[in-house]
Amino acid sequence: MDKIGNLIYAGKAKDVYEYEDNNKVVVKFRDDISAGDGEKKDSLVKKGYYNSLISSKLFEVLEESSIKTQYLKLLKPQYILSKKLKMIPLEVISRNLAAGSLLRNFPFQEKQKLEPPIIQMDYKNDKYHDPMLNDDIIIALKISTKEELNEIRAITKKINHLLSKFLDEKEIILVDFKLEFGKDQDGNIVLGDEISPDTCRYWDKETLDTLDKDIFRKGQGNVMNAYEKVFNRVVDEDDLKKWNID
Amino acid sequence: MDKIGNLIYAGKAKDVYEYEDNNKVVVKFRDDISAGDGEKKDSLVKKGYYNSLISSKLFEVLEESSIKTQYLKLLKPQYILSKKLKMIPLEVISRNLAAGSLLRNFPFQEKQKLEPPIIQMDYKNDKYHDPMLNDDIIIALKISTKEELNEIRAITKKINHLLSKFLDEKEIILVDFKLEFGKDQDGNIVLGDEISPDTCRYWDKETLDTLDKDIFRKGQGNVMNAYEKVFNRVVDEDDLKKWNID
Repeated sequence: MDKIGNLIYAGKAKDVYEYEDNNKVVVKFRDDISAGDGEKKDSLVKKGYYNSLISSKLFEVLEESSIKTQYLKLLKPQYILSKKLKMIPLEVISRNLAAGSLLRNFPFQEKQKLEPPIIQMDYKNDKYHDPMLNDDIIIALKISTKEELNEIRAITKKINHLLSKFLDEKEIILVDFKLEFGKDQDGNIVLGDEISPDTCRYWDKETLDTLDKDIFRKGQGNVMNAYEKVFNRVVDEDDLKKWNID
Repeated sequence: MDKIGNLIYAGKAKDVYEYEDNNKVVVKFRDDISAGDGEKKDSLVKKGYYNSLISSKLFEVLEESSIKTQYLKLLKPQYILSKKLKMIPLEVISRNLAAGSLLRNFPFQEKQKLEPPIIQMDYKNDKYHDPMLNDDIIIALKISTKEELNEIRAITKKINHLLSKFLDEKEIILVDFKLEFGKDQDGNIVLGDEISPDTCRYWDKETLDTLDKDIFRKGQGNVMNAYEKVFNRVVDEDDLKKWNID
């Protein structure tokens, strides 16, 4: 672990550190949790542990199906060795069922099935409160090109298909999720960030219970109990063995 | 004028009446003006007169270039005979220069040239405060189909080109404008609503003075003086003669 260098960037829930290989970084999953444009904050023991392991597993699932991701390997819980990317400041949201801000902003029915799924792109910009964009605005702001947006949409659809299927087998409904992409040094579009109960809505397939950050947003119940449930369903003994975790 | 029937619909600034021919309606341009989600209201003498004549002229300009519009003829000031349409509840906004809500919501520079122009589609829905949409959401809400949206975008681009050129010759910069479309009884996409200083941003080409509803929104100056200026530049003596207006 002494190959980890200086802090490059501190986000709301993750830190990014330099690595001895200049094309790589180490992403640290902290225990911090926040919601509501950063207004609601807390620190929850084991959140970084669960999220780093759930995210590692889901990135491995995607890599097995030839999705290019930032993930290289889990160094130890909370620490993921990753490709260094130049991030694109978009939150790419894919929705299978109507929930959250979609219900606040538009006349959808709660839990309404969205077929085909909705893809929404928000601007990752605290000053402007992450507004929803459209392609013309994205291009005018020089955030991305039309070709890149079409590629991002195609990758997002494939990821939705793969993750929905994988999670369904674990008795979890993938309601919606947020992705962030970046470019590697060759200019390829690569999936970055994380895929965890912080960035997805997961519902129990049988009870429809919430198993994600919505519990924290709404202050309804024990957040870490839900994250632990997801962890237990998604990560198995073989994964822990492979990662050298007792 | 006795062919005008019952009121079908009363909007914020226009009324729609039945006509003896059931495929047609009469649109009355009232003197009412409103802004800020209907919070700011007034009635301005001659507004209906100016807007009905400016809109008639601009619809005629578009019809001459084979754009399908709702406009049939000006019956008399404030009253336009129109095709009956089933309106699509979208506000299709086309922007050539950054102004208004674009500056509030996104980091554009004031008066920044947008090349290519931005097209934005807002949901015409008072309850939800006319939120911006994207194609996936429009389709999921069953407001319109992908094919229709592509056609609406293509027509909007052509209209932008035609109106910008026409107004430029009148020393007016077309900064941005809002269109509404509907479908005629054969299912064709047809331009409806109005094109006036209520629904466009017009700037004087030399002074960059505002010649549109922004004067009312901001409470800065004499609104009808500006509308009269646009009227005098856009509508000429031959138009008035043709319309039998003294």
